[in-house]
Amino acid sequence: MFTTQTYVARRKQLAEAVGHGLIILPGNGEAPMNYAGNPYPFRQDSTFRYFAGLNQPDLILTINAETGESLLYGDEATLDDMVWMGEQTGLDELAQRAGLQVGGNLQKAVDTLCLSEVVHYLPTYRDARQMLLCQCLNEDDRPSEKLIRAVIAQRSYKSAEELAEMDRAVTTSMAMHRAAAAGAKPGMREAEVAGMVEGLAISAGGRLAYAAIVSRDGHILHNHAHHNVLREGDLLLIDAGAETPSGYAGDITRTFAVGAEMTAKQQAVYDIVDDAKRRVIEAIRPGVPFRELHDLSARIITNGLKQLGLMKGDTAEAVAAGAHALFYPHGLGHMIGLDVHDMEDLGEDFVGYDEEFQRSEQFGTRNLRLGRRLEEGFTITVEPGIYFIPILTDRWRAEGKHTEYINYDALAAYRDFGGIRLEDNVVVTADNCRVLGSV
Amino acid sequence: MFTTQTYVARRKQLAEAVGHGLIILPGNGEAPMNYAGNPYPFRQDSTFRYFAGLNQPDLILTINAETGESLLYGDEATLDDMVWMGEQTGLDELAQRAGLQVGGNLQKAVDTLCLSEVVHYLPTYRDARQMLLCQCLNEDDRPSEKLIRAVIAQRSYKSAEELAEMDRAVTTSMAMHRAAAAGAKPGMREAEVAGMVEGLAISAGGRLAYAAIVSRDGHILHNHAHHNVLREGDLLLIDAGAETPSGYAGDITRTFAVGAEMTAKQQAVYDIVDDAKRRVIEAIRPGVPFRELHDLSARIITNGLKQLGLMKGDTAEAVAAGAHALFYPHGLGHMIGLDVHDMEDLGEDFVGYDEEFQRSEQFGTRNLRLGRRLEEGFTITVEPGIYFIPILTDRWRAEGKHTEYINYDALAAYRDFGGIRLEDNVVVTADNCRVLGSV
Repeated sequence: MFTTQTYVARRKQLAEAVGHGLIILPGNGEAPMNYAGNPYPFRQDSTFRYFAGLNQPDLILTINAETGESLLYGDEATLDDMVWMGEQTGLDELAQRAGLQVGGNLQKAVDTLCLSEVVHYLPTYRDARQMLLCQCLNEDDRPSEKLIRAVIAQRSYKSAEELAEMDRAVTTSMAMHRAAAAGAKPGMREAEVAGMVEGLAISAGGRLAYAAIVSRDGHILHNHAHHNVLREGDLLLIDAGAETPSGYAGDITRTFAVGAEMTAKQQAVYDIVDDAKRRVIEAIRPGVPFRELHDLSARIITNGLKQLGLMKGDTAEAVAAGAHALFYPHGLGHMIGLDVHDMEDLGEDFVGYDEEFQRSEQFGTRNLRLGRRLEEGFTITVEPGIYFIPILTDRWRAEGKHTEYINYDALAAYRDFGGIRLEDNVVVTADNCRVLGSV
Repeated sequence: MFTTQTYVARRKQLAEAVGHGLIILPGNGEAPMNYAGNPYPFRQDSTFRYFAGLNQPDLILTINAETGESLLYGDEATLDDMVWMGEQTGLDELAQRAGLQVGGNLQKAVDTLCLSEVVHYLPTYRDARQMLLCQCLNEDDRPSEKLIRAVIAQRSYKSAEELAEMDRAVTTSMAMHRAAAAGAKPGMREAEVAGMVEGLAISAGGRLAYAAIVSRDGHILHNHAHHNVLREGDLLLIDAGAETPSGYAGDITRTFAVGAEMTAKQQAVYDIVDDAKRRVIEAIRPGVPFRELHDLSARIITNGLKQLGLMKGDTAEAVAAGAHALFYPHGLGHMIGLDVHDMEDLGEDFVGYDEEFQRSEQFGTRNLRLGRRLEEGFTITVEPGIYFIPILTDRWRAEGKHTEYINYDALAAYRDFGGIRLEDNVVVTADNCRVLGSV
């Protein structure tokens, strides 16, 4: 597990990279659900947790980039708090655990912020944090690109301790998928399976890393409705991952036929996706641009769909034109770590792209979150899929789009097929990669 | 289930009660967890749902209190939304389901709001809603007490359709408790049991109505940490309730010994709490002030603790002095409905108190959320408890507090006892009450 020295070293590295000014990293507060006293499960800000390790709400960390001085701010608990919530760890002890000095209460943090000439802060994703920063910043202040890049430069490379947590997240996630595959029966509602999956993430001491997808409508990419009744032979797509107690995410997708062997038609599509996943994983190594691996997966899928008579023409040309995106309209994968889309709050293009690789503007490929060359220590998802999306098929057909690559007539037989996605998480090693959860 | 006419009638009643000006009821948006694209499970605002019945994010309802004209505002989905999220119900159809006219997009709602002279709005509990209202309101604008009172006057009385949902919530909640009692074994972590409980709420198509308490430290009233390992004979306190797909809450507490019969010592405390719950339920009828029932439960608990040698002196005087609150520092119960603490966002004192009954300032009783006379159609919780809270005992003993009523020496033997709470949900009927979930 992570030691106090880990956090001290991380902050030192960050201060050196930023060099000048005051870095402010506010932790998250409680997020009200239907009234202030009934919050959602607390979720710490990932960057705050990375640099301070503390999982309590309403804390603020500041780092003086010149001196490295790191201060923790927070309000102390009252006796009433302790009667209701149990003994609360004092600010002193929290600071000590993280190797920090005590800065004072939250108001003092705001005062300090207001007095600082150069403040480095990250983009906000919760209104409360925006309102906190608004108390002190000028209208033309912007999140610090220097800080964003420095944080990404650290969090992108996972340490051995972090990889142990990632393995744990994936191992729990795989247990969730095994339970779902064993438990899903014809006649059940999708919600029943979703409850099994989410219950196991909680039983492991964490929670889900993101809202689970448990759907016989696998072609609806982000479908969080779970009201369908499962029928024998339905393809059930489950995209679900555990978050460990220390905050690391798993992100695993499996697709299976409910209460039955797959039909030959289902198996044929499954095999294409499985082949794409396997061959991408075999091709992963430091230096390979993820954008090229995405294109590789698109070509494997296109070739497979040609064999099924659903696509036609030259594979490379079809992929270059973006015709495959009718069936595969998302990206091959993304960074994963303390966030399931790691550091997405800092800006996807900062995380996944660079001067060498910019985001495509083409439908489908523009959803690829990661394009840059892989490096040792990156943890990423590999998640190809094939979907039959009636609303998109109808639109493209009506527009006469990519008729040289797509056999629209043959697609009629797949209208109710649904979708298949298969997803693993891997760490890029010195020579190739290792599938996480496999130790 | 609820028909369109239900919502039309509810809005008509509200408009008539408010009489003048524009009522604005914004629904909730998504609540970001660790980045904007990874939200918590969507939870609609309860009052919006009560008056519009719609469970989609980012909608606004306005009601002209003079004409009764009710408008729905929202932004239409794009093709990209539909590829990712599936076919989205259009604003037209949503409005039709709820018996509303289409007002326009969200910007139009803001524009309308800014043009209105008299705007009635409710207290906000999410920053996003505050920021929405801030675009148009003046600094000295305040939530409308007239609207608050009118909403409470409607939502406090549950219809037959609502009671059917409440029964459903409690039935699911009871199934969660039965599964936990059957599944909790020595050697498990509390989190494993918490996962079973929460998983079943999700499997039933809803979610938890509030963060579950699953704790061998039952004396910590709002303890959401679940890392303890259960030992044989530990008292395990579980406070957990399901929210149905239509948004109604159950709120049930049970306490049992893990993998064992209760010891005589545990059973003696249990029986006092059980007796308090039973006798309060027997005493519930329209016209009885809930404050008196709270005092009844305090007297039953005090009498019981006197028999155990932990309290002494005159029972009524001890309760009047607040000595019982060392063991029972919370209130007997609260309203429940679309919120587990129903309408808490509107102001607890508006919901639970009136001119006849004001909130006590005494430690313990000041936490009673409901004091007013009960009326037919109210749904409430009944949840007495006895806790042994070392931090509070030590404080009171050091202060020499209530030494005429408390045998501090005898308390040493209970230092590690934990706590017992038992909780049912009831509806006040014409003659007495009915325990929910019992049909």
